[in-house]
Parts: sequence; structure tokens; C-alpha cells
Amino acid sequence: MTEERDVTLAIDAMGGDAGPQAVVDGVAHAVKGGLKTRFIFFGDKAELEPLIAAHSHIADAEIRHAENVVSMTDKPMHVLRRGHDTSMWAAVSALDGGEAQAVVSCGNTGALMAVARKQLGMIEGVERPAITALWPTPRGRTVVLDVGANVEATGDQLVQFAIMGEAFFRALTKAPKPTVGLLNVGAEDLKGHDLIRTAARVLREADPDMAFKGFVEGNDISKGTVDVVVTDGFTGNVALKTAEGAARLLGQWMKETLTGTWNAKLGALLMAPGLRKLKARIDPSSNNGGVFLGVNGIVVKSHGGADARGVESAVKMAASLAKRPFGDEVASTVKTVMDRRQRIAETAADDDTIKAAAV
Amino acid sequence: MTEERDVTLAIDAMGGDAGPQAVVDGVAHAVKGGLKTRFIFFGDKAELEPLIAAHSHIADAEIRHAENVVSMTDKPMHVLRRGHDTSMWAAVSALDGGEAQAVVSCGNTGALMAVARKQLGMIEGVERPAITALWPTPRGRTVVLDVGANVEATGDQLVQFAIMGEAFFRALTKAPKPTVGLLNVGAEDLKGHDLIRTAARVLREADPDMAFKGFVEGNDISKGTVDVVVTDGFTGNVALKTAEGAARLLGQWMKETLTGTWNAKLGALLMAPGLRKLKARIDPSSNNGGVFLGVNGIVVKSHGGADARGVESAVKMAASLAKRPFGDEVASTVKTVMDRRQRIAETAADDDTIKAAAV
Repeated sequence: MTEERDVTLAIDAMGGDAGPQAVVDGVAHAVKGGLKTRFIFFGDKAELEPLIAAHSHIADAEIRHAENVVSMTDKPMHVLRRGHDTSMWAAVSALDGGEAQAVVSCGNTGALMAVARKQLGMIEGVERPAITALWPTPRGRTVVLDVGANVEATGDQLVQFAIMGEAFFRALTKAPKPTVGLLNVGAEDLKGHDLIRTAARVLREADPDMAFKGFVEGNDISKGTVDVVVTDGFTGNVALKTAEGAARLLGQWMKETLTGTWNAKLGALLMAPGLRKLKARIDPSSNNGGVFLGVNGIVVKSHGGADARGVESAVKMAASLAKRPFGDEVASTVKTVMDRRQRIAETAADDDTIKAAAV
Repeated sequence: MTEERDVTLAIDAMGGDAGPQAVVDGVAHAVKGGLKTRFIFFGDKAELEPLIAAHSHIADAEIRHAENVVSMTDKPMHVLRRGHDTSMWAAVSALDGGEAQAVVSCGNTGALMAVARKQLGMIEGVERPAITALWPTPRGRTVVLDVGANVEATGDQLVQFAIMGEAFFRALTKAPKPTVGLLNVGAEDLKGHDLIRTAARVLREADPDMAFKGFVEGNDISKGTVDVVVTDGFTGNVALKTAEGAARLLGQWMKETLTGTWNAKLGALLMAPGLRKLKARIDPSSNNGGVFLGVNGIVVKSHGGADARGVESAVKMAASLAKRPFGDEVASTVKTVMDRRQRIAETAADDDTIKAAAV
């Protein structure tokens, strides 16, 4: 593990649903909690000054005025063309110029991705970006990627997602050898698309240093069977939102159970400490922050509706990643693995032809 | 709604993880609960006779001896070739011969699908089967299909799944006009694959009788936004299992909360009625039973690990569907819609070309 470096975070303070207050408060909480980084806030100076002045912990943070804000409905193409005066554009620029080592934004996902790709470019050898999501498990957290940067992924791109996800998890948690799985379906007869099978074979044979565990199924995500679950952005996005929906419904029903009668309310009081712990466990704020892997820099997208606690999580994540940059490692691993994969993919294709002929 | 017909159910009594006891008990519970159908049990006669004799409600059920059982690890191809003496094969045969109007099996999914397709064939015009899953929502239940019959689906096949899912939901619930949605991702820029967009357009324009609501996202499933959620078998399988995994984790944490301290245990006692209701709501038994839509007959796959309550749900579902057969309706709608879709698909392709050129 390389030594941690001093970092500055670029904070796009505008564009979230909760406004700059939540962003500034979130940063202040993180600093109060011990985070040692410099900050540059980008946004409306007149609006930001009093918000920042209210927190002694971040009173020395720099503010850079930006005239405009990217709205949630702005088209990425529009922002690329006409959004150069926005806080988002300016915050990402700070990365490009080397003034900051990571950027955090609560703004429009599509626009942030477009601006990041445009200004930062991609890591050498990585074809497509992927967005991460953190998922609570009994063992801690699992990272799932891609949860929505692209609707489709080729086998090569899945391999690249796996390499990036592994490096991301290592940087975030300091786990030396994260385990990695490819999301698949379990039914014997239809174990996945060809491209997933090929990706599995490439990972197994061309990246022997990776702790690749083969295929995992949907239920393995919440079990924490592996540290990193790799899938295409369509499947990842559906899985994430479906699980969130199911959790929300269960939460509603639980709430009805706890408040349905006077007896139940009394019972809820008796288990208050446990309920607080449960609430903390399922609080989406603690897992807030999706990272745009593949772009040449640390770009953390906070949920648009994040409160101060959510922003705090995203800021801490950005700082951890910025302190242990992994772009070069990813570029070098991707190059090695892709150099080896052509031969493997060809052999796999031969096998598939044989299988198909046997059916 | 056509009048309900008298039906006989063919029960594959072997092959589930819990053995024939759970199957026989489940059928007996359903009859005790008022279900009026005849039953033919297929399996080991010596084993089944005492189990059935123990329930006065089903004492007159017929038993057909089958020498063999399909195991959970048998390959479908093997069963097709050498499994003609199994209880699964014989039970499905009863449908083909017209002796029974639906079959229920707790056995090997892949084998059951292969046996059903082989013996019953497909509904005219339907290219591929789809497996349904029922999902609890605040409004009742949503059906999701396909949850794993195929790993990929073309646009035409998604359209056919939608038509089958709608007919299935109508037969199951007697709702005259079920609402239907296509599962997609929400991010503005990447609203789905081309084939999903084309499927949506075909459903909207070629099936004006359907209450088609367009795209839904993962979180809409548990919300109950629509009655029928249509997707390919890969995405559906991952979504289902991911949500099950998340629900199981939440359930574990809830259990820890309710039993963590003596105070919490006392609290749990005070909310016992609410907890019983919660347990019933999330009990997977009540939603047990996946139907193989597209094959020419009602084939209900009970979960391999289903207990008697789970089997009871699957048996009731089979009876409801058998009483209101919808195969002819599906064939006729599929024919109409497919006749119209070619022109629509071509126009959609033109639009996509224009969009692509504009990016």
C-alpha cells in the first residue's frame, strides 16, 4: 500500500435537491469527525459564504464563485456546450488542473458523467465508465458496478469493470485482496449469456492475481458473498432499485407494526436502542456516494436528495479514494489482461460452438 | 369472463426437497380451505397411500404409481430421453391427455420446462416460454415475468410476455384490465436498449386494448405501480433474487432487534399481533408458484423447498388458472399484435436512426 497523500477536495456545492446548505453541513460534519483534507467549494459565493462561516471547522475553506448551476433536467449535451460557467464544470476543472484530487457533486448524474469524461478523459485502456453503489451486508459492504453508466456491456468491458471495482474496493477499505464475482442467473440450463461466460474465463485465466470467485446470484449481493459484484449497467440499475423498493416496502410494514397499537408503541419504546441500531444499519446515507470509475480522476456522485449525513459519507469516500489513487494501477492491469484475453476469448468461442452443436 | 369449469389437477408428488409429505399436506390444506377440484397424485404409490389416507378431505384422490423421480440435479436432456417413468413425466402427460387441466410440481425447474414443452408444445405464435413470480405490494400483488426461462429476449418476445402476463393476471385475480409495464432503467440518457423501446412502441400501438403504462423501474415492482412487470429472464431472475436477498438481510436484522435484549423481547410480546401480520405479509409461502406461460397448458412450478403452506398456494393458483383457461385468448392476441408489429418496428428503427444521428 502506498503512503497516503495530502489531498484537496473540489465540492460542487450547488445542484442537489437539498441545496448548498446540506452540502456545506455535510462537509463540516466530515471535518468535525476528523477528516483532514482541504476543500474548495464551487457555487454562488454570496449564498455559500454565510453557510461556511457558520462552521468554525471549515472557516478557512476556499470559495470559487460560479455564475450558474446545472439543473436536474439539463441535458448532458447542453451542459457540455453551454455549461462552462456552472459550479459543476468548475469543480471538475479543479481536478483537471491538479488543484484538487477528487470532486464531489450532488448534481445531475448524466451531466456530471459527460463533464467528467470531457474534461478528464478515460483511464488508458478502459472503454467505458461504470458507476459504483455500496450495499450493506452482514460482513460490511459490497460494491456493485455498473449501476447505470451504460445499458449494455461487452465481455471486455465487464472484465474492465471487475479490474476497476477491485482496485476501488482496495482503495476504499484497504482490504489487500478483495473478492470479485460476476452477477449471473442460477438456473442450470441457462447459466448466463455467452459474454458473461467469456468474461469469467478471461478473469480467471488472464488476471491470476485477482481473487475472482466466478458467478454469483442476486441474493449473494446482500449476503456479502464477494466484495465486488460486477454486472452491466442495466442489470445493476434494476437490481439496485428493485432491492431499494423491497426494502422500502418492508420498512413501511415494519413501521406499521411498531406504531399500529398503543401496546406496539410501548413495545417500540422498550426496544428503542435496537431500533436505533437497525435504523443506522439501513440508513441509505451511510452508503451514499457513487463513484464514476474509468474516468481519469476521482469523481463522486452524491445522491441528489442526500442530506448532510449523506454528503458526509460521499465526502469521506472521496477523500479515501483521493488519498490512495488507483488510476495507474487500473491502467496497467487492464493492459496486461487485455493483452492476454484475445487468445482466451477465441478458445472460449470454440467451446461455445461445440456446446451449441451438442444441444 | 367465461364461466368457471370443473377441473382436475395433476400433482407431481415427488421431487421437492421436503418430499411427498409437504405436497400431500399442502393439497389437503387447500381442499380443507374450500378448493373444489379433483386430484390425481403421481409418485410412489406405497409412499403416497398412507400420506393421503391421513387426510379425510382428499381420501378419494387418485394415485398413479410412477417408478422413478426426477432429481434436482438431473439434466433436462436426460429426463427427456430417459425420464418417461418419472412422476413428473406422468403428471404432465395427464394434461396432454386431457385428464387434468393443470399440473403442479415441486421438482427440477429445467426438467419440468423441458418436459412441458416436449409434451404440451407452445401456444401458437408464442416463441418462448416465460416464468412468472408473484411479488407482494401495498396494493396486493404484482406479477413479474420472465424470471428465468430464458437469458435473453427479443423485442417481439417481450411483447408476447406482456400479452401472456396480462392474460395470466386477469385469470388469477379476475381484474378485468390489468396494467402492464416494461422494466427499464431511469437515467435520462440511457432509457433502455433499442429492443425495449421497440417493444414499448409495439405494445402501445398494436395492442390498444391493453392498459400498457410504458416503462417502469426496479422500485416500481414493490410499489405495485403496475399489475404486470415485463422483462427478460436474466434481469427478472437477478431482480427477484436480489430483492429476496435484501429482504432476508432486513429480516435478520429485524429479528436481532426484536430479540437483542430482555426489554426488546418484552416489547416484541406487546406487538405480537402486529408481528404476526408482518410475518404473514412477508411469508414467501403465500406467493409460491411460478407459472410456465407460453406452454400449451397450465404448468405451475412450486419452489423446491416449499412447505405445505407453499404447496397450498401453488395448488390454489393452478386451480384458479385451470378454471379460466387463457391459452386461446393469448394465441389470438399474439396473432393480432404480431401481424401489426412489423410496420411499427420498422418505423421505430427509423426513429432510432434519426436519434442516433442527432447525438
